[in-house]
Amino acid sequence: MGASGHVGGVARGELQRRGHEVIAVSRSSDPAVDTSDPESIRTLLETVGDVDAIVVAVGSVPFKPVTELTREDYTAGFVSKVLGQLEFVTQGLDRVRDGGSITLTTGVLSREPVPAASAAALANGAVESFVISAAPELPRGIRINAVSPNVLANSPHYHDAFAGMTPVTDEAVAAAYVRSVEGNVTGRVLAV
Amino acid sequence: MGASGHVGGVARGELQRRGHEVIAVSRSSDPAVDTSDPESIRTLLETVGDVDAIVVAVGSVPFKPVTELTREDYTAGFVSKVLGQLEFVTQGLDRVRDGGSITLTTGVLSREPVPAASAAALANGAVESFVISAAPELPRGIRINAVSPNVLANSPHYHDAFAGMTPVTDEAVAAAYVRSVEGNVTGRVLAV
Ligand SMILES: NC(=O)c1ccc[n+]([C@@H]2O[C@H](COP(=O)([O-])OP(=O)(O)OC[C@H]3O[C@@H](n4cnc5c(N)ncnc54)[C@H](OP(=O)(O)O)[C@@H]3O)[C@@H](O)[C@H]2O)c1
Ligand SMILES: NC(=O)c1ccc[n+]([C@@H]2O[C@H](COP(=O)([O-])OP(=O)(O)OC[C@H]3O[C@@H](n4cnc5c(N)ncnc54)[C@H](OP(=O)(O)O)[C@@H]3O)[C@@H](O)[C@H]2O)c1
Repeated sequence: MGASGHVGGVARGELQRRGHEVIAVSRSSDPAVDTSDPESIRTLLETVGDVDAIVVAVGSVPFKPVTELTREDYTAGFVSKVLGQLEFVTQGLDRVRDGGSITLTTGVLSREPVPAASAAALANGAVESFVISAAPELPRGIRINAVSPNVLANSPHYHDAFAGMTPVTDEAVAAAYVRSVEGNVTGRVLAV
Repeated sequence: MGASGHVGGVARGELQRRGHEVIAVSRSSDPAVDTSDPESIRTLLETVGDVDAIVVAVGSVPFKPVTELTREDYTAGFVSKVLGQLEFVTQGLDRVRDGGSITLTTGVLSREPVPAASAAALANGAVESFVISAAPELPRGIRINAVSPNVLANSPHYHDAFAGMTPVTDEAVAAAYVRSVEGNVTGRVLAV
């Protein structure tokens, strides 16, 4: 989910190289899905059928100084980045085979301040604490983790906001998704 | 805010003992406030006027196994525990004097799994990451922290859900609020 993006593309590429069959979706794929619409996710999951793993790397959040962020901004980020991802748990769990996995995507903003990022921090922190809490309750040996990267070296348009932080390689990010999908960890925030 | 509750009562009692003038509010106080209604918070802040510190200890979240939690449950928890507290930042910041503080309340669920607590974990994680990110952007030397207690020894009705976790004393919880209000820390999750 989000395979045409920077982060999702990194995950997709490495999983394909390792022999996984990847169904790469976004708003512009066929089948298409819009994560802001739960019905759209329902249709996607019905079309695709059962899978071994779900990997989600979508969600956008307003960036503004905290003195300008509004209730509407926090809500928009929550709907896009938290509910948009959690829908793949509430709806997706039944589509994941025994012993499979769900991997969500957060980011360094949950733990490190960066200017104008408080709504994004909020959304990331929400997803990370959710993953920690949800993991022990998942049925049928299904695992859940969050991959939480610093800014990607190959996403140069974000670098100004992340001044002084060390961008991470595609390889390091890919490895975290591989570990979540193929490894045995659950309830973990895989910081990159 | 929430001074008639367990946690808010602990904070209020200790701050009063230390000589602070505390305006103790909840839905049943005079003036009354309902944190689920931004207009009600606006009216309260206008009535009270400027303060040295805002301390918020309210917010309730549905408790259900993650396999039963719905989009509506996550949203209800977000509105009550995240937006209900953040409204005291978006609206409250202008009411806090130079060098004052805002203290929000989260809890151990952000970092430790407990059965049926994933929506609460989500809300706590959201507020904690928000506080970390927002602190450097607050104007006029205003500080912001979250007090994040384990279950209180004196809140016995919660203890079954927290089996095997060590309840904390009122004194330890009170100390965290005192540190946030009187100390110099900001952007901190004060785990108790
Ligand atoms: N890039 C980084 O350095 C970095 C670092 C840490 C965390 N992250 C996080 O990783 C996530 C992805 O970031 P990114 O940099 O990869 O973003 P991106 O390059 O803009 O890619 C976003 C992806 O999501 C899809 N998408 C966007 N809105 C959608 C919607 N409503 N429904 C379905 N698909 C949607 C896009 O495809 P369509 O336009 O075709 O729908 C695209 O595949 C974000 O949450 C971001 O915060 C990124
Ligand atoms: N108790 C614990 O062991 C513990 C541990 C960690 C974290 N926490 C967290 O601390 C917070 C407070 O918990 P608590 O145990 O102190 O709860 P509590 O004893 O039920 O007290 C809740 C307080 O909030 C007020 N309140 C509730 N809904 C309100 C609303 N919509 N608008 C305004 N005021 C409202 C209540 O007063 P009125 O009914 O008069 O409005 C009361 O003052 C919660 O977020 C909880 O998760 C509690």
